[in-house]
Amino acid sequence: MIVIMEHDATAEQVNKVIKYIEDKGLKVQVNNGETLKVVAVIGDKCGLNIENISSFEGVREVKKVQEPYKLVSRITHPKDTVIKFPNGVKIGGLEKPVLIVGPCSVEKDFEGLLKVAQAAKEMGCHFLRGGAFKPRTSPYDFQGLEEKGLQYLAQAREKTGLLIVTEVMDTMDIALVSKYADVLQVGARNMQNFKLLKALGRTKKPVLLKRGAAASIKEFLLAAEYILYNGNPNVILCERGVKSFDTQFARNVLDIAAVPIIRKYSHLPVMVDPSHGTGKKYLIEPMSKAALVAGAHGIMMEVHHNPDCAMCDGAQSLNIDEFKNVARSLNKLIGRIDYDNKNS
Amino acid sequence: MIVIMEHDATAEQVNKVIKYIEDKGLKVQVNNGETLKVVAVIGDKCGLNIENISSFEGVREVKKVQEPYKLVSRITHPKDTVIKFPNGVKIGGLEKPVLIVGPCSVEKDFEGLLKVAQAAKEMGCHFLRGGAFKPRTSPYDFQGLEEKGLQYLAQAREKTGLLIVTEVMDTMDIALVSKYADVLQVGARNMQNFKLLKALGRTKKPVLLKRGAAASIKEFLLAAEYILYNGNPNVILCERGVKSFDTQFARNVLDIAAVPIIRKYSHLPVMVDPSHGTGKKYLIEPMSKAALVAGAHGIMMEVHHNPDCAMCDGAQSLNIDEFKNVARSLNKLIGRIDYDNKNS
Amino acid sequence: MIVIMEHDATAEQVNKVIKYIEDKGLKVQVNNGETLKVVAVIGDKCGLNIENISSFEGVREVKKVQEPYKLVSRITHPKDTVIKFPNGVKIGGLEKPVLIVGPCSVEKDFEGLLKVAQAAKEMGCHFLRGGAFKPRTSPYDFQGLEEKGLQYLAQAREKTGLLIVTEVMDTMDIALVSKYADVLQVGARNMQNFKLLKALGRTKKPVLLKRGAAASIKEFLLAAEYILYNGNPNVILCERGVKSFDTQFARNVLDIAAVPIIRKYSHLPVMVDPSHGTGKKYLIEPMSKAALVAGAHGIMMEVHHNPDCAMCDGAQSLNIDEFKNVARSLNKLIGRIDYDNKNS
Amino acid sequence: MIVIMEHDATAEQVNKVIKYIEDKGLKVQVNNGETLKVVAVIGDKCGLNIENISSFEGVREVKKVQEPYKLVSRITHPKDTVIKFPNGVKIGGLEKPVLIVGPCSVEKDFEGLLKVAQAAKEMGCHFLRGGAFKPRTSPYDFQGLEEKGLQYLAQAREKTGLLIVTEVMDTMDIALVSKYADVLQVGARNMQNFKLLKALGRTKKPVLLKRGAAASIKEFLLAAEYILYNGNPNVILCERGVKSFDTQFARNVLDIAAVPIIRKYSHLPVMVDPSHGTGKKYLIEPMSKAALVAGAHGIMMEVHHNPDCAMCDGAQSLNIDEFKNVARSLNKLIGRIDYDNKNS
Repeated sequence: MIVIMEHDATAEQVNKVIKYIEDKGLKVQVNNGETLKVVAVIGDKCGLNIENISSFEGVREVKKVQEPYKLVSRITHPKDTVIKFPNGVKIGGLEKPVLIVGPCSVEKDFEGLLKVAQAAKEMGCHFLRGGAFKPRTSPYDFQGLEEKGLQYLAQAREKTGLLIVTEVMDTMDIALVSKYADVLQVGARNMQNFKLLKALGRTKKPVLLKRGAAASIKEFLLAAEYILYNGNPNVILCERGVKSFDTQFARNVLDIAAVPIIRKYSHLPVMVDPSHGTGKKYLIEPMSKAALVAGAHGIMMEVHHNPDCAMCDGAQSLNIDEFKNVARSLNKLIGRIDYDNKNS
Repeated sequence: MIVIMEHDATAEQVNKVIKYIEDKGLKVQVNNGETLKVVAVIGDKCGLNIENISSFEGVREVKKVQEPYKLVSRITHPKDTVIKFPNGVKIGGLEKPVLIVGPCSVEKDFEGLLKVAQAAKEMGCHFLRGGAFKPRTSPYDFQGLEEKGLQYLAQAREKTGLLIVTEVMDTMDIALVSKYADVLQVGARNMQNFKLLKALGRTKKPVLLKRGAAASIKEFLLAAEYILYNGNPNVILCERGVKSFDTQFARNVLDIAAVPIIRKYSHLPVMVDPSHGTGKKYLIEPMSKAALVAGAHGIMMEVHHNPDCAMCDGAQSLNIDEFKNVARSLNKLIGRIDYDNKNS
Repeated sequence: MIVIMEHDATAEQVNKVIKYIEDKGLKVQVNNGETLKVVAVIGDKCGLNIENISSFEGVREVKKVQEPYKLVSRITHPKDTVIKFPNGVKIGGLEKPVLIVGPCSVEKDFEGLLKVAQAAKEMGCHFLRGGAFKPRTSPYDFQGLEEKGLQYLAQAREKTGLLIVTEVMDTMDIALVSKYADVLQVGARNMQNFKLLKALGRTKKPVLLKRGAAASIKEFLLAAEYILYNGNPNVILCERGVKSFDTQFARNVLDIAAVPIIRKYSHLPVMVDPSHGTGKKYLIEPMSKAALVAGAHGIMMEVHHNPDCAMCDGAQSLNIDEFKNVARSLNKLIGRIDYDNKNS
Repeated sequence: MIVIMEHDATAEQVNKVIKYIEDKGLKVQVNNGETLKVVAVIGDKCGLNIENISSFEGVREVKKVQEPYKLVSRITHPKDTVIKFPNGVKIGGLEKPVLIVGPCSVEKDFEGLLKVAQAAKEMGCHFLRGGAFKPRTSPYDFQGLEEKGLQYLAQAREKTGLLIVTEVMDTMDIALVSKYADVLQVGARNMQNFKLLKALGRTKKPVLLKRGAAASIKEFLLAAEYILYNGNPNVILCERGVKSFDTQFARNVLDIAAVPIIRKYSHLPVMVDPSHGTGKKYLIEPMSKAALVAGAHGIMMEVHHNPDCAMCDGAQSLNIDEFKNVARSLNKLIGRIDYDNKNS
């Protein structure tokens, strides 16, 4: 059971609720969100009179939620969450699916990044991605340009109007990355970095949360719950392939079914990354299409101006011409899906 | 390296090839297929003069094949295999994707089976599926009606003209099942029952081979290789979900990427079974669509006239009304795909 | 619920039980075992009077069993099953753990097989293993010497007194293999070949059932249940590694915990095969020790007189000297375990 | 290739090496460790004269290392790393394996913690574990006492002399946790939190690094490499089970083979946590024994003074009496192993 307080509930009002519940011998867990105060009640609620609590001052709503992910659940929030950006772009619900495009990592060659951004713009995309802080399996691999990379992204935004999606790897970097990014990405390896999730819950920026390579859907939704519970409702989920016993033809198994499953159980938008999900160029187009017809709110894909020389993930990056072909094909499908959505 | 003999090559001609190769100190593996004689050469081929062998009488072709699956590989056979049924229906290549529809197992209620068959017919499907021999995890579960079930399927075919797809579990049952079935299905659990695969290679019936629940794509293609190598080129592959660490929302992870991967590396038709692949009704439609746009040659789905009372897999079976809705939606998508295929 | 009939129960007595249960509206599943007749009752047993059935003539026992594997469960059969061979060797319970030793496949060089057998004998082992029918992923790999291989094994038994463990792959081969083998092995890929399991249930020979590479423990126990249910109580389980996302250092993850788990939930003996379980020679000794201290009733390992030239699995086979070293080390540990078992 | 500089190499000396390498057109990656300066050379080293570099001032050693984990590899460092604590306790090499014992999380009841610590002391253990910062899948689960918990641990140390092992979850908490802990633990979910690993590389405290639930051994070793590369050589690896398709009887598959594999390829000590690795009390003893005979340098296990009321992981925690029995049994085995180590 959770008690959702009004935005302007006073500390006194919150404490009254807590005291009431604790006096019944139950435990209480309170979040620290700025925009949303939630009191979760833990333990056997038999003796609790819900109507009583509902009528306390400062209480907006009391909800019984069976599922462990409460705020993320469609039961608590039946309507789709749609995330709106200042320039009018939207992600979620029945909005037109979006494409997020860019190199795995931002590199020294700013002109290369700009070429990718301009191609993305030309193909009608709204988002540029690129890593300035790179989580790399080996310490000997390129670790990213850090703030320099963020500046490059911001410059590319200035020139193209694209929104910037980039990864934040540590609580200490949130302020810095937020200065430049429109969407803060949490990488698969950090999906259960709970300190980071909590800190991101205390920002207002939209967060793109990637599924861990061996995270169950329940764990994925609970990771998102950390962010919502700490006050930030703007979370976009992103399926990016799960580990399997077979890595010969594709480095992960892209779990397309996660899309309709998440849309059934949660109100949050959900995207798919076929580049990491398969690790193979030629699979990006068919898997993007599969994700879109299965209901994905967007596709995130790697495009590099010169994949053969990319500092990471070259083999799975489209070059600019290949990207334009894929984008053309996906835009056509997106058009059909958008038409069907608006006429169903 | 493989040496493909002419259909009418004599034993003498084959033996001459074998002797020639063995005299070079190499090992030889000969298949026993009635329609296709293949001599596979094992070991270091350095000293072997391929032109020599090519000119031997009775030799059709000599191929160097790096991949372990030689006959299944697109390298050996660049054109798509299209399987043609006597009534004109085709599976594979750019042919219109097909739907295979029916209950998990054939049950005592023949009228129920007939209702499903008639609904399938009505929706334009060409295939009726249903198990007469059932591989069940527990010996206490329903094991199938055996020959009675086969007879029911044949009766449903008589009344509707649908082609019959049904499983064969053991070499000893091949003759019996072949009497009734148009397509012999090999279940996921038997994907590496090599004696069965060899015996099916010696029949002429099309074989629908389901991927094992933890079989790699390489193992899957090699299982098909057993059938081709033993003389039967009519194999349809079927992805049906692989085991993963997450079984809460779907009992398997449906590996949609297997479709474009297999189409790239093999010429054989490939289908998808979203019923077993997910175990959930509501996922059949989105996952079927995903499979189709990713290039699947067909969809196999479970439909039961009364899923709540089904003797197996009720939870993942559509009832007849649900099926009609799904089929309508898929037929629309299939129409678009077929149009695109014919106009690209 | 299951009804276990007396060995000499008449058809009439069995039928009376069945009729009584079916008259209550319940379904019944009867096994065909020669030595053990079991009537399993399926459905809601609320209306059933168990005492009534218990007192029917020919009924030995009526058991309520929650677990899906009923005969295999320790609840039905609290005492450890110990399998006794004519020469006095025993497997299971608190008997001294055994070593099963030999090449992956029996090859043309009989003298090589004999060397391995003699080394096994010398080190105090009781069992010789070797495949005459080989399940191979590729049709181009060596498929086994078939009956010739069985004859070689029998000759090696004659010369050494070792008992023979060898695989049977198909129902049609059971009679042939049984002529030569002391223990019939079911390979991992056939663990859910239910026709084969049923047919093995109708023999009297001990069956060594290997766990499928992605079989859950429940599926493993249910596969054994097929054999017991069909009348053969002499089943030895064998853990041999499960598939995982990591295949760089070992081809499978050897699930040592399966040993104490199976010993807790079942009365059947359970062994471990570290050769297939890891695919690496240097892991055989430490993993055998781990299995033994965790309670394994035996170890099955691959030994070849000349591993570099083995026709299969050379990389994971010990040569004779390596084997003797490993056996010495394991015999020491087995001695300690045996001492502890007998003095606890 | 890596260039290891002397401890007292000057910035000038390091820069000279870098310049020399970069002038050959190669990339360079330099670590920031206080105790160990390493220059890794990336790219094709053909044109590089190694002897030249070796003779530069400030250079201790130049090593060619094929493996991606260079400092962690046994090739670079053939002798076992043995970690020595101020009180004389040692972990690694042929030292007597240790037991690390304590509750999953430190709770409000300090007396309970003390009881566990005293029992550990009584049984001859040297380490007390307990989480003050808890990574929990759900935000509604107990998140730890934070600094209060650390103080409790320090008090327990004062009273018993046990060394403290406790988790650090975020770079921002390292200083705080280091004030209290003797060993800094990195949890499985943070195994690839590279910012944390780097920061831990800049401390001197021993780090106990747990394997991610779906991390390959290579990824595990590379995570350790981050710590060593950043200057901290005191890393203890800990296997704690990997995710699998089967979670019915044990929540993970404990990968015992990881122990001999890691000991072959790395010089770092490696331990096993059977509590998290299986999630079942009754498996702790057999799996601990299995780990020890396979070469583990220690066992980490959960013990709670009152498991039924534990705030986390009660089901897998031993109570104090159970712990004493297990410890007795393990101490006996440890004694034998220690004897064998010292007499082999």
